[in-house]
Amino acid sequence: GYPRLSSIYASYGFDVRHVPLDAGGIDIDALDASGADIVHIMPSHQFPTGRVTSVTRRYELLGWLAGGSERYLVEDDYDNEFRMAGRPIPSLASIDVLGRVIYIGTFSKSLGSALRLAYMVLPPVLAARYDAALGFYSSTVGVVDQICLARLLESGDYARHVNRYRTQRRQVRDALLAALAASPAAPRLSVEEADSGLHFVLAVRTGATEAQIARAGLRHGVRLAPMSRYATADDGAPWDDAAGYAGVGASAPLPGYADTMPRFVMQYDGLSPEAVPRCSAALAAAVLETAR
Amino acid sequence: GYPRLSSIYASYGFDVRHVPLDAGGIDIDALDASGADIVHIMPSHQFPTGRVTSVTRRYELLGWLAGGSERYLVEDDYDNEFRMAGRPIPSLASIDVLGRVIYIGTFSKSLGSALRLAYMVLPPVLAARYDAALGFYSSTVGVVDQICLARLLESGDYARHVNRYRTQRRQVRDALLAALAASPAAPRLSVEEADSGLHFVLAVRTGATEAQIARAGLRHGVRLAPMSRYATADDGAPWDDAAGYAGVGASAPLPGYADTMPRFVMQYDGLSPEAVPRCSAALAAAVLETAR
Repeated sequence: GYPRLSSIYASYGFDVRHVPLDAGGIDIDALDASGADIVHIMPSHQFPTGRVTSVTRRYELLGWLAGGSERYLVEDDYDNEFRMAGRPIPSLASIDVLGRVIYIGTFSKSLGSALRLAYMVLPPVLAARYDAALGFYSSTVGVVDQICLARLLESGDYARHVNRYRTQRRQVRDALLAALAASPAAPRLSVEEADSGLHFVLAVRTGATEAQIARAGLRHGVRLAPMSRYATADDGAPWDDAAGYAGVGASAPLPGYADTMPRFVMQYDGLSPEAVPRCSAALAAAVLETAR
Repeated sequence: GYPRLSSIYASYGFDVRHVPLDAGGIDIDALDASGADIVHIMPSHQFPTGRVTSVTRRYELLGWLAGGSERYLVEDDYDNEFRMAGRPIPSLASIDVLGRVIYIGTFSKSLGSALRLAYMVLPPVLAARYDAALGFYSSTVGVVDQICLARLLESGDYARHVNRYRTQRRQVRDALLAALAASPAAPRLSVEEADSGLHFVLAVRTGATEAQIARAGLRHGVRLAPMSRYATADDGAPWDDAAGYAGVGASAPLPGYADTMPRFVMQYDGLSPEAVPRCSAALAAAVLETAR
């Protein structure tokens, strides 16, 4: 998961548990077993696995919500603008008739995180509770920024910007995937979950560990984000970098994965088209150099 | 006090008590008796009374802090730029050797509340605790705004703006005080705490209630802020508009006041020089019309 989320919930005194995913999304049996009342998921594009929650699993999640009167689901749709391929899937909020889905989105991926612009869509009952308990808070977003954003949305310029930017990002993704496929390391690489959002996952067939490959990457000029960094042990403790690295590619698979291949979260938000060949070459060099 | 503050602390689960003021600032005996560990005060210019905490009381407050190892003081210096007359008094944070004063300030009064810019200066021990427990939070202020503010401060333009704006506000205050002194209602008016900040208090000698004067003010085109609106009963409940009004100017004085005169919080942040005569005339008309 996204470590900052756990920190935020923990700082409010919540008892935070991590629930494994399978290919369809969050594991409903494990969710049930966790005893949680509130689930925070990223169904459009889970971070870090990139998995898209299936329609079937979405209905199962709504069924889980219906199973308890104080159950809520936070639908964190942080990069919803960047579905790159495949059919769009309805958001949980749009098919929720229980009023238990809290939809949150951000402009951090589409306009830039430096702007600190995000939003929350509460179901009516919770909106009333929010107004009563916390409505006295002023928005932390300055009025000038709010007005600029409103004009951008109303004029259609935001939609045009997103369309242009999505196309541009898709081209970078395509170029990077093509470069990796043409690289000498290609037989060792497989790409996972590249249809949505601004990152995909790269799995490497090797006897080396994530840490070894990441260190080699740094020497060649590419900073890799090992999947194990985002893994969380069953007891809620974050994966230990040293211990986590030692285990990966050797013994136990990470939660949600059947194999022990090293994996990297390949974010291409900020990658320029010009940098793609260099990035691919550095990655291939790091993989081949450490391959066992 | 400032009602939103109580709401914020209460929303974090704090048990909020209100402690009366006297002319020198917060009542230390009452603070002791409240059992509080954390006190939030506005020593430069208390809202709504406008009172400035005396140097003596500041040292007594530091003495109170020293009396318990987990006592903290929040020095809310929301309009520190606007000392209009008299000698500057050192902030509590500047004379705190215990490391127990949390200094907070804002650019809302000097640049505009629409920008949502504020800051907090933590003593070193608390800064370390903050970093450990909450350091993962991103600032809610956009980076562009932060850079603009930094340039404004570094260039000296902020200081020049504040000096200009303070002079301009002082002229508006002086014009308003002169207009009130020259108005037919003058014998009934007394001005309190006009040396600092962007509001003063106007007390009215009359048999009318605050509510009656405020209603008359509205008819004449001026919206008055009755002092009783900011009063808080001993049990922590906010003053009831209807009940509060009925009592004021008739029976019990508000906390911190010896008399039962109606009082109004006269904010002149947004008052233009051109509007001063109209404002003064409307106020005088409201006072004279309701005088008993």
